[in-house]
Amino acid sequence: MSVILYQDKFLQREQGLVDMEDRGYQFGDGIYEAIRVYNGNLFLMDWHMERLVRSARELRLDLPYSAAELTENIKELVRRNGIDDGLVYFQITRGAHHRQHDFPKGVTPVLTGSASEMVRDPDRTHGISSILADDIRWLRCDIKTLNLLGNVLAKQAAVDSGADEAILHRGDTVTEGTSCNVFIVKDGQLITHEANNFILNGITRRFVFALAEQLQIPVIERDYTVDELLAADEVFITSTGKEVTAVVKIGDQTIADGEAGPITRRLITAFSAEVERVKAGALS
Amino acid sequence: MSVILYQDKFLQREQGLVDMEDRGYQFGDGIYEAIRVYNGNLFLMDWHMERLVRSARELRLDLPYSAAELTENIKELVRRNGIDDGLVYFQITRGAHHRQHDFPKGVTPVLTGSASEMVRDPDRTHGISSILADDIRWLRCDIKTLNLLGNVLAKQAAVDSGADEAILHRGDTVTEGTSCNVFIVKDGQLITHEANNFILNGITRRFVFALAEQLQIPVIERDYTVDELLAADEVFITSTGKEVTAVVKIGDQTIADGEAGPITRRLITAFSAEVERVKAGALS
Repeated sequence: MSVILYQDKFLQREQGLVDMEDRGYQFGDGIYEAIRVYNGNLFLMDWHMERLVRSARELRLDLPYSAAELTENIKELVRRNGIDDGLVYFQITRGAHHRQHDFPKGVTPVLTGSASEMVRDPDRTHGISSILADDIRWLRCDIKTLNLLGNVLAKQAAVDSGADEAILHRGDTVTEGTSCNVFIVKDGQLITHEANNFILNGITRRFVFALAEQLQIPVIERDYTVDELLAADEVFITSTGKEVTAVVKIGDQTIADGEAGPITRRLITAFSAEVERVKAGALS
Repeated sequence: MSVILYQDKFLQREQGLVDMEDRGYQFGDGIYEAIRVYNGNLFLMDWHMERLVRSARELRLDLPYSAAELTENIKELVRRNGIDDGLVYFQITRGAHHRQHDFPKGVTPVLTGSASEMVRDPDRTHGISSILADDIRWLRCDIKTLNLLGNVLAKQAAVDSGADEAILHRGDTVTEGTSCNVFIVKDGQLITHEANNFILNGITRRFVFALAEQLQIPVIERDYTVDELLAADEVFITSTGKEVTAVVKIGDQTIADGEAGPITRRLITAFSAEVERVKAGALS
């Protein structure tokens, strides 16, 4: 039986119950993070904590614990569950109060977290398929909130089509995936949507920027169109779970001959080298 | 101690706990309704049930109970709490499952409901103040879902400004309030946003259409601008809790000399007459 984190306590999974008037349950009024674990080590934890603090500030949600306390508790959660390679998910809601739209006073935020195994696919070079879907989400996609129905519906549309992912576009502009960022490769350069209110600034997105710098691959953050996406030399997504993963089919169209292209492969190789360093205990 | 509805059971309030992996809690993946109670009688319950069924269909959420069963249980909830004038709130989520974006198979939807007193203000003719706020919500506002952060943030902005409500606009077009529809009166006609994906088709909005027909006041459903709002002869909002309520100030600007205007008053009077009929036990 797994152990969960509930506030700063470690409880059995079946004790992971929250109040029906928790604002996370009635309004989606909360924020979350998902952190990758390699060989028991948290990957890019500081970056996740920085983003959490930003999300909390944007929603004026008072974090009940410091980033240092949270980090310690999450490390302990990983230990207690004996996670080797895995994923930690946790969320913090504004807390429980009789229903009202505006922020109630005197509520205590509620943290719930869990850790689960996630085996890393040794072959990172196979690609996934995607559909295109209208981005119907709200205009603060930069905050990592629990209001995820737009993402859910697009992901379901992908599954309904037999695809792995949905690439979202607002009008002609490609924004991101349902739980990942999207990069295109054109003439040796990486292009991805700028980090503004239309996308979540992914941790893996930022890590790929660092890898690209090491590899001397130029990165351009700008709006790009669906036509540019479909005409790209290569397309890949980035996320905590999927790391760098090639997209080789979008709708009916094959991308990059149906395989991860050369630049995507270089990034995957560089990413894997970092993972090996983290597995060996290097600070991430 | 109050009694809550949990699935089809009546439990003590403190038993109203849900799983931390309920999709309502992690994605806002659920729908809700709020129904007014007058003298123990549910107001316009059939309309609420029809809308619930529509919301469920749009999210492909299988309702666990028929509208008839739900209605009976909600009546019993009102009885058990001894509610005279009040409000019933209930929501149905897709249920609990280990986190994944697409719809999981084999989950059981979770219903939680409560009833509380809501005293009807005998003076319905005083007005409220409002601010203007950008409508940053998603593009399926027609579904009554638990993804309400856009509404929450706008309502909080109103409170921060010392106002009662926020009237939302998408570009120049007025959409609705944070939990109400908005009507303007111009040259003896009612104008309100058409019921499309940009607004929730409020039950009270529809009821006002019926009242207006009785009173031979023309109603036009169309886009109208912020300028038209500010130049209106009268402005009012409609909602289950607020019924018909005049808006007499928007930002710094006074509307209709700061009082409920004549057409708003006629609608309030007609509404109150209907409430008296419902209180006397007439079917609504």
